[in-house]
Amino acid sequence: MARTAGSHSDITGPKISAAALRLFARHGFAAVSMRQIAAEVGVQAGALYNYTPDKQSLLFDLMRGHMDELLAALIPKGIAGAEAAPIERLERFVRFHIHFHLERPDAVFVSYMELRNLGPENFAVIEGLRRRYEDHLETILKAGAADGSFAVPDSKIATLAVIAMLTGVTTWYRSGGRLSGEDVAGLYWEMVRRAVSA
Amino acid sequence: MARTAGSHSDITGPKISAAALRLFARHGFAAVSMRQIAAEVGVQAGALYNYTPDKQSLLFDLMRGHMDELLAALIPKGIAGAEAAPIERLERFVRFHIHFHLERPDAVFVSYMELRNLGPENFAVIEGLRRRYEDHLETILKAGAADGSFAVPDSKIATLAVIAMLTGVTTWYRSGGRLSGEDVAGLYWEMVRRAVSA
Repeated sequence: MARTAGSHSDITGPKISAAALRLFARHGFAAVSMRQIAAEVGVQAGALYNYTPDKQSLLFDLMRGHMDELLAALIPKGIAGAEAAPIERLERFVRFHIHFHLERPDAVFVSYMELRNLGPENFAVIEGLRRRYEDHLETILKAGAADGSFAVPDSKIATLAVIAMLTGVTTWYRSGGRLSGEDVAGLYWEMVRRAVSA
Repeated sequence: MARTAGSHSDITGPKISAAALRLFARHGFAAVSMRQIAAEVGVQAGALYNYTPDKQSLLFDLMRGHMDELLAALIPKGIAGAEAAPIERLERFVRFHIHFHLERPDAVFVSYMELRNLGPENFAVIEGLRRRYEDHLETILKAGAADGSFAVPDSKIATLAVIAMLTGVTTWYRSGGRLSGEDVAGLYWEMVRRAVSA
């Protein structure tokens, strides 16, 4: 009965990920069973194990996938490079962070809420990826402090403060509301710019 | 066997709350059973029901207690009153928020993480209390915008941004680390002050 690679697994794998993400976001990792995930996809519970060894692996793959996507998306935005001025790179970072997170409410929610449910090794991997992302922002803040355009007494704390502020958008933003994603990004950029400017 | 008020219930009630908080923070609401809570307190599972009708009530009481305490603690700090200048009240708010939250990591964690596990009526109550707390900050920001000391294009968004930024401290702060709570509050106050100042 074991199914390895093939036409069905190409479709079923992503379907399982999507179903797990939906259910984890709605009910929480601990409250969701492999049986429920199978039912959501429309396969037998046993069939799930052809695609993933267990629920922990599903959670870890979702979180790692989210972080890989986030880090990869930074590159074409010219945020990771040092070509532009720090203020320009900071603006790109702020707008990018808000749009990226607003487009993936379930993935963001699960990535923040379910950290405690990762096994220690998996947690270390995700924490490492998060640090790499934070380092991109801290590099920008340090560059601005070095050339005198920013006043940042503690670049690590400023990094964590800015990321927490920006990510908070996902807890209240609803598309179709009073403000567009573009409006929100503009308002937050203005606050971040002032918070770190010399 | 039913135990109502009396010397034991005076002690056991708070013990149950404390045990539930600890376990919810560590494992998540969905993963914790009434039996586990009883074992943590050192009573029979059945005895728990003399103190609380169900796990949902335990969660709701913890979250409501946290918000009641937060709102009550604002008053003696002179944050809710309009006697002082907006910049002074804003500084008090920022320092208060950081210290209050750093002192209660479990309660903060459960209050943010388990919102989705509240029943609809309970959720509405907690949301109302949160709004009341946010309103205190928004009132300060509006007062500063009115007297020209603050530049806040959207006081609601600025309120949510500041609260998210400040509360983020609880996700990384460890006492005994590089920075004291006082250091952290000072760094955040500087960033908030600049973010909203005219």
